[in-house]
Amino acid sequence: MTLASFRRFLLGEPLPTARAIHERLPKYLALPVFASDAISSSAYAVEEILLALVAAGAVGLHYSVGVAAAIGLLFVLVTISYRQTVYAYPAGGGAYTVAYENLGLTAALLAAAALLLDYLLTVAVSTAAGVAAIISAFPELASYRVALCVLCIAIVTSINLRGAKESGKVFAGPVYLFVTIVAAMVVVGAVRLWLHGPPAVVPSPIGPETQALGLFLLLRAFASGCAALTGIEAISNGVPSFRVPESRNAALTLVWMAVICVVLFLGITVLAQSYGIVPDEHGTETVLSKVGYTAFGSRGVLYLILQAATAMILVLAANTSFAGFPRLASILARDGFAPHQLANLGDRLVFNNGIVLLGAFSALLIAQFGGQTHKLIPLYAVGVFISFTLSQAGMVRHWWKERTRGWPVKAGVNAVGAVATAVVLLVVAYVKFTHGAWMVLLFIPLLMLIFLQISRHYRSLARVLDVQGASVPRAIRHAVVVLVPGVNRGVLPALAYAKTISPDPEAVFVEIDPRDTAELLREWGELRAGLPLTVLKSPWRSLAQPVIQYCHSLRVEKHVDMVTVIIPEFVVTHWWHRLLHNQSGLMLKLALMFEPNIVVTNVRYRPE
Amino acid sequence: MTLASFRRFLLGEPLPTARAIHERLPKYLALPVFASDAISSSAYAVEEILLALVAAGAVGLHYSVGVAAAIGLLFVLVTISYRQTVYAYPAGGGAYTVAYENLGLTAALLAAAALLLDYLLTVAVSTAAGVAAIISAFPELASYRVALCVLCIAIVTSINLRGAKESGKVFAGPVYLFVTIVAAMVVVGAVRLWLHGPPAVVPSPIGPETQALGLFLLLRAFASGCAALTGIEAISNGVPSFRVPESRNAALTLVWMAVICVVLFLGITVLAQSYGIVPDEHGTETVLSKVGYTAFGSRGVLYLILQAATAMILVLAANTSFAGFPRLASILARDGFAPHQLANLGDRLVFNNGIVLLGAFSALLIAQFGGQTHKLIPLYAVGVFISFTLSQAGMVRHWWKERTRGWPVKAGVNAVGAVATAVVLLVVAYVKFTHGAWMVLLFIPLLMLIFLQISRHYRSLARVLDVQGASVPRAIRHAVVVLVPGVNRGVLPALAYAKTISPDPEAVFVEIDPRDTAELLREWGELRAGLPLTVLKSPWRSLAQPVIQYCHSLRVEKHVDMVTVIIPEFVVTHWWHRLLHNQSGLMLKLALMFEPNIVVTNVRYRPE
Repeated sequence: MTLASFRRFLLGEPLPTARAIHERLPKYLALPVFASDAISSSAYAVEEILLALVAAGAVGLHYSVGVAAAIGLLFVLVTISYRQTVYAYPAGGGAYTVAYENLGLTAALLAAAALLLDYLLTVAVSTAAGVAAIISAFPELASYRVALCVLCIAIVTSINLRGAKESGKVFAGPVYLFVTIVAAMVVVGAVRLWLHGPPAVVPSPIGPETQALGLFLLLRAFASGCAALTGIEAISNGVPSFRVPESRNAALTLVWMAVICVVLFLGITVLAQSYGIVPDEHGTETVLSKVGYTAFGSRGVLYLILQAATAMILVLAANTSFAGFPRLASILARDGFAPHQLANLGDRLVFNNGIVLLGAFSALLIAQFGGQTHKLIPLYAVGVFISFTLSQAGMVRHWWKERTRGWPVKAGVNAVGAVATAVVLLVVAYVKFTHGAWMVLLFIPLLMLIFLQISRHYRSLARVLDVQGASVPRAIRHAVVVLVPGVNRGVLPALAYAKTISPDPEAVFVEIDPRDTAELLREWGELRAGLPLTVLKSPWRSLAQPVIQYCHSLRVEKHVDMVTVIIPEFVVTHWWHRLLHNQSGLMLKLALMFEPNIVVTNVRYRPE
Repeated sequence: MTLASFRRFLLGEPLPTARAIHERLPKYLALPVFASDAISSSAYAVEEILLALVAAGAVGLHYSVGVAAAIGLLFVLVTISYRQTVYAYPAGGGAYTVAYENLGLTAALLAAAALLLDYLLTVAVSTAAGVAAIISAFPELASYRVALCVLCIAIVTSINLRGAKESGKVFAGPVYLFVTIVAAMVVVGAVRLWLHGPPAVVPSPIGPETQALGLFLLLRAFASGCAALTGIEAISNGVPSFRVPESRNAALTLVWMAVICVVLFLGITVLAQSYGIVPDEHGTETVLSKVGYTAFGSRGVLYLILQAATAMILVLAANTSFAGFPRLASILARDGFAPHQLANLGDRLVFNNGIVLLGAFSALLIAQFGGQTHKLIPLYAVGVFISFTLSQAGMVRHWWKERTRGWPVKAGVNAVGAVATAVVLLVVAYVKFTHGAWMVLLFIPLLMLIFLQISRHYRSLARVLDVQGASVPRAIRHAVVVLVPGVNRGVLPALAYAKTISPDPEAVFVEIDPRDTAELLREWGELRAGLPLTVLKSPWRSLAQPVIQYCHSLRVEKHVDMVTVIIPEFVVTHWWHRLLHNQSGLMLKLALMFEPNIVVTNVRYRPE
């Protein structure tokens, strides 16, 4: 009872299955839920570009707008590609589904592994960046970085366990606030630049030039900035969560999201370059924080709103994954590649087990990397671009098979997307390999192997359990034995039950201390229970061994297939009373449970 | 199987009950087992006296021999008293037994609480002092003090779990080595003193005089030194462990022990005073270590043997408690004042649960007090003297009741002992109250209360379970329901079993996802199991709730007293396969277990 009420307090009242349809999201709520990841990545993607370029000194920083423009172009390309997916797969067209239907099992499992890992990293990176925004405004919190991250993850996890619709409401405010305040910052900053020109003071000194500006450096800046693209695919995974007409609503939301992302991302980059902002290598203040207070002219109210909104959208961006990860895990579970438990709907119509798993693993990841965004980023983009590439390539194949009206154009659009993302994937894997991408390239095949092993187990089990050709179940010969620990009221229900399920039950007593036996036999005689009692010697004081031996000898003597051992138990009224009783009944049960041809039944006595 | 073999590795082969008689100890092994505590306390008791007296400066230290002589006298008195107990109670005359038989229940429980606490403190104090001896010789180990203490406790615990006889062998060496080396030190030191006079250099400077020498200070020194008396009662508790004639052997061993203790204790004190040794207030080097290297003239081999023997006997002194605590706990359990589990003999004929309990609590105590002997000492003597007083007072009453030949003399001896220990008890409680004795004075009544509550529970349960007037158990009306999670071979044994124990069993299926139902019904029809199948709706996706409701409705409809719910299970072949299956069978069982009038039976299917 207390467990149930605690659960209710944590999760809210359970929802009936029939209400699932009402949990659909309108567009204005779907945007924050599914796009918070993509939108929020502008908060750190610009910084990652600058951090890569600053290795070449002030000269390097001048290329930031160019790099950002290339990323913006890629963003538009990928969006157009995914818009076609949303229409083609109204039931949810994640990279996994698209790859499975069009490219086969291996591609699908590769996409699934990449996506799951990516959801996990999204939670870790977004939370770390959100906490970095808080620490930019309040540097004295720097020593609590990991603790703050874990706290945020715990909050987002619990919000998600309460169900999808409530999440939409919680997330709408911060996302729209962030979009508004960053747009305002870009406008105010541009006007100020136009009126007064760039600020006279350089906010912080540029470190020594460590690397010549060259193609590798530009590619690394580009690869780092590609973190801005993470989260585009979320909408295509989540089409069934949209209100009808699902595909149209999802496609519209996707376009809105792309416009917002590209505008904010380019706006921040242009301002940062114009202001000559240099990123902190050791990460005490974020680039967005520097741009913000330069644009707004002070660390006043607007600046604080910017930091607060950034922190909130980033922490809540993790929510994209809390929608996506459990959904993908449940699809994998239904297809037999992941444990079945991941497909169970919880009390609030969400996939509880997936949510808890994601929360736990991302907290571990945060702890492992000390909550540092820049240490997590190199692991990030590989998985994203694997799934982009597979998804687009799968779509090309899809159009080729379908050949609906205008298919060559659609196939062409997806082909361009596939090639572009494949090239970026190679670039990202190459320039980030030693910085951590190798871990991802090791982990993804491992995960695929686990998927295959699980699938093998379920399939072999299905074969074993197949009823084809099995004979119809018939009554069997069985003997019933009641274990009598002593003569008291606690054993009476067990004796009655034994008489109910068998015409000739027996009782046994295991003799641990021979001095007790005579008294027990006398009491048993007085009870007149009508069952024969056998005393089993136990020279080693074991309870289970003599019972098991006796059951086996019974099977031979009485020619029975199975022996039912009835263990009397009594219900304790206070939890601490449990400590006062030998848990020998439980131990005995555990020992007998693994014996073939023995069924154990507890019959409980409740003293009133 | 692996658990059993691990257990065997840890504990050794199990011993049959019949071998219990062979585990009796000859005197030369009983002495180290039961007297190591008393003998080893001379290692720290002298130090405690000096630490109390040094508050009055060099003048104070001159009184150490006087204080020690008073304690020696008390030791002889208590020994004579206990010798009478050993003869009067050959079955083991601990303070608890003597108090119970002669002074009644309250006195007995007071004695029991005091003794249990004392056994616990003996383990903690002895281990801490033993580790202090190691650290005196190797000061670089000082930062591992607590870890070393816990390691020692773990070793002693595991030795004891292997059984009493092996313990005797392990403990004999160190105890006899300690007695020999300390005796040698006293002789060599005395000869050196006689030949050369006291050493010219004072080993360490005396701190400032903080307190005037007065009665209170002398009493405190006396109270601290009374730690030397702990452990005298161990032999009287353990009489049944001696070889026949038990009482005579135990009495002889008691006298040997007293002679050894008093000689070593006084010898060390006289040397320490003659050498003008000053105790370290912050405990880097022990007094015994200082006496040792002054007497032997260097930190050579003999000095190192002394330190090693001290460390060993102290750590092993804890063994006295590992013999006494589980034995007393088992007596309390038999009398219904402690959980019955404490009376179970383990694989090696020792009381496993008591041993583990003592090991765990003493490790906690060590950790709490940072492994510092002088912080634990003030808690120590109160319990000892409570049990001394009760034991002697009980003996006076015993002689008064028995009136055997020469009873007035015997009663007089015990009366002197009782008065002396009662006075010391008051002194100890008074002078150590604020230093920690208050905790003991709070904890002992609490423990007594727990004993009484446990006894009340067992007695009320015995009344409830009494079969007097109960009607003879008869067969009852019952219905049998098989839970069908799906149609596969896993449910076939359950269906067969249901047909065996009932002429008209039923099957039920809980519908979580209505889309699965039609297929299931079709498969069920093909199976031709011969049982009716009922589909139970579950709008909240709960498995247990619909089953419980159905069982209750069955009881009304079919007029049955009880419903047996059969849950099919299948045996997994690899541990990780368990992760791949919903543990819904287990969850369901837990939910149904607490329902009255429902019996749950698992029938297992093993795929080959």
